[in-house]
Amino acid sequence: MVIPIDIKSSESKKYNIYIEKLGRIEFSHKVAIVTNPTVSKLHLKSLLSTIEAPSVEVIEVPDGEEYKTIESVLSILDKLFSAKFDRKSTLIALGGGVIGDMTGFTASMYQRGVDFIQVPTTLLAQVDASVGGKTGVNNSYGKNLIGAFYQPRAVYINPLFLNTLPKREFAAGVAEAIKMAIMFDKEMFDFILNNTLEDEENIVKLIAKSVELKADVVNQDEKESGIRAVLNYGHTFGHVVENLTHYTRYLHGEAVAIGMVMANELAVILGLLSEQEAKVIQELLEKNSLPTTFVIDDIEEFYEHFYLDKKSAAGNIAFILPNGSIGTHTIKRDIPKESVLLALEKFKG
Amino acid sequence: MVIPIDIKSSESKKYNIYIEKLGRIEFSHKVAIVTNPTVSKLHLKSLLSTIEAPSVEVIEVPDGEEYKTIESVLSILDKLFSAKFDRKSTLIALGGGVIGDMTGFTASMYQRGVDFIQVPTTLLAQVDASVGGKTGVNNSYGKNLIGAFYQPRAVYINPLFLNTLPKREFAAGVAEAIKMAIMFDKEMFDFILNNTLEDEENIVKLIAKSVELKADVVNQDEKESGIRAVLNYGHTFGHVVENLTHYTRYLHGEAVAIGMVMANELAVILGLLSEQEAKVIQELLEKNSLPTTFVIDDIEEFYEHFYLDKKSAAGNIAFILPNGSIGTHTIKRDIPKESVLLALEKFKG
Repeated sequence: MVIPIDIKSSESKKYNIYIEKLGRIEFSHKVAIVTNPTVSKLHLKSLLSTIEAPSVEVIEVPDGEEYKTIESVLSILDKLFSAKFDRKSTLIALGGGVIGDMTGFTASMYQRGVDFIQVPTTLLAQVDASVGGKTGVNNSYGKNLIGAFYQPRAVYINPLFLNTLPKREFAAGVAEAIKMAIMFDKEMFDFILNNTLEDEENIVKLIAKSVELKADVVNQDEKESGIRAVLNYGHTFGHVVENLTHYTRYLHGEAVAIGMVMANELAVILGLLSEQEAKVIQELLEKNSLPTTFVIDDIEEFYEHFYLDKKSAAGNIAFILPNGSIGTHTIKRDIPKESVLLALEKFKG
Repeated sequence: MVIPIDIKSSESKKYNIYIEKLGRIEFSHKVAIVTNPTVSKLHLKSLLSTIEAPSVEVIEVPDGEEYKTIESVLSILDKLFSAKFDRKSTLIALGGGVIGDMTGFTASMYQRGVDFIQVPTTLLAQVDASVGGKTGVNNSYGKNLIGAFYQPRAVYINPLFLNTLPKREFAAGVAEAIKMAIMFDKEMFDFILNNTLEDEENIVKLIAKSVELKADVVNQDEKESGIRAVLNYGHTFGHVVENLTHYTRYLHGEAVAIGMVMANELAVILGLLSEQEAKVIQELLEKNSLPTTFVIDDIEEFYEHFYLDKKSAAGNIAFILPNGSIGTHTIKRDIPKESVLLALEKFKG
């Protein structure tokens, strides 16, 4: 299956997303695969067997979100320079979101930009992170605060990679797919509600639908000046949860699951979602082994953390919420602090 | 005078270049001026008097090409984070090419991209570096090897800034203007040949013509996949000269002047330029206080250095040369090593 990406703002940003077993990929110049030791052990061999190139370098960075730093990017850059990569070389990101984000960011700045290809190995990266060209690293001020919008040349999604994925990481990917369904597609939501994700065919359907939705959004709004912000549903709250737990307790998708439940509390208060639908969403998340509760010690402190988020332009916090029911969305920038605190109260310890 | 930039590949990359005394510039969000102590002392006050913004931060980096590093960029980023700049903030580059390149690169990655404005204070930055969106830093492998193509929101060129510019730096800017004339515009070449650059009106004409030519090239080919490479005339040789002298002996424009004389030797050998025209160019450079001689100790070593240049894609060195006479250009990728060595012989110690 091939899903074309065609970002409207630019002629040069066309590429395809392939959802299939990896076929042969040919390169006329040097290639570097960026990966981590965990993924490398599982999937490097199979990727290498599909690549034909004058030379292939493998660059490993340590596994984990805590290594998604500018220092890791600089170390990848250094390896590329010492191996004399030129402007026509290609970087391949083999791994989850961390590897994809760092490889893309590295590619964006190596000699002012070389090609890169996404080969996502986690469900989260397959349904979300690998599509759309957001790249970057974390720093002490927060997540993804340094980066670039830089589109890959292609995305190769191989569902077979998921066979080795830990259950918790699989669930984290499902959270992002559910997020997209709640915002954009009631039919997709019902599909997830009524079908088992133990079935490979259903997983492929889930990936394809997610990628189609994401591609559609990115094609309309690459730089997140409008509709792309809707993809942050669950993230405004989720980022604070991640931040307060120092990015160690929850996987990103898990924090987003909690964040969606929090956002829904606010939506219910504002009359933008029925209690009944909020409950259906919460139960679906729980059925998919995702956390939905979080104890907030200090709701004022939690509220203050919104302002650390880079999306809070000039002090206005944008809340992404359903707009009446599942499958609809709205961006609210004028929600009174009291309403937000009222929603957070429900999570108070 | 306003020269519009409209890069064809993208809707969103329109901006203006203003050549005039600075007028009032208004901002609705925070502004950071990035500059160095030397420029700050001379021009910060006059820039500040034109800016209206909720708050203005001044960030100074040390003066000099040796500080055009990723470390300087990281220190600017850190100051922006600690001052809580958001996505709608604007960076203003007040200085020469080094400040402009670093500020643009910083802007490209701060929260995946914020606006930046170029206020070039050297002739070189006014006629060349501030236009076209090439940003970046040097590293131990060479110049501008890490960076981004990132267009400013506007360029404000104030010719009055040149009154305080050292004579040597002024000459370095003239070199880049002569470069553009040789490649694209015989009439402009004759203008420089026949008029004094002691006259302010002539300087403004020179800046305007250079910027028009550069804008035209960048509009056609932002990412240097074609005609933009022509702007590297004199640079292939010049970069080696800079590298061999560890970026300390010559200003960039001075090295380009030497590089053009070397390129012209090659052009004469290949029948692409008459000896007479090569001589006229050399004399014009000398009349403008630019160096035109360089003693090469080891021509093989000099040749090897071409391969360190990032423009030497996959081992093919691209030589940019006049194509028969002044005002014309060609890109040659198949020049035999012997011809190049023959040209270099003329500079042998």
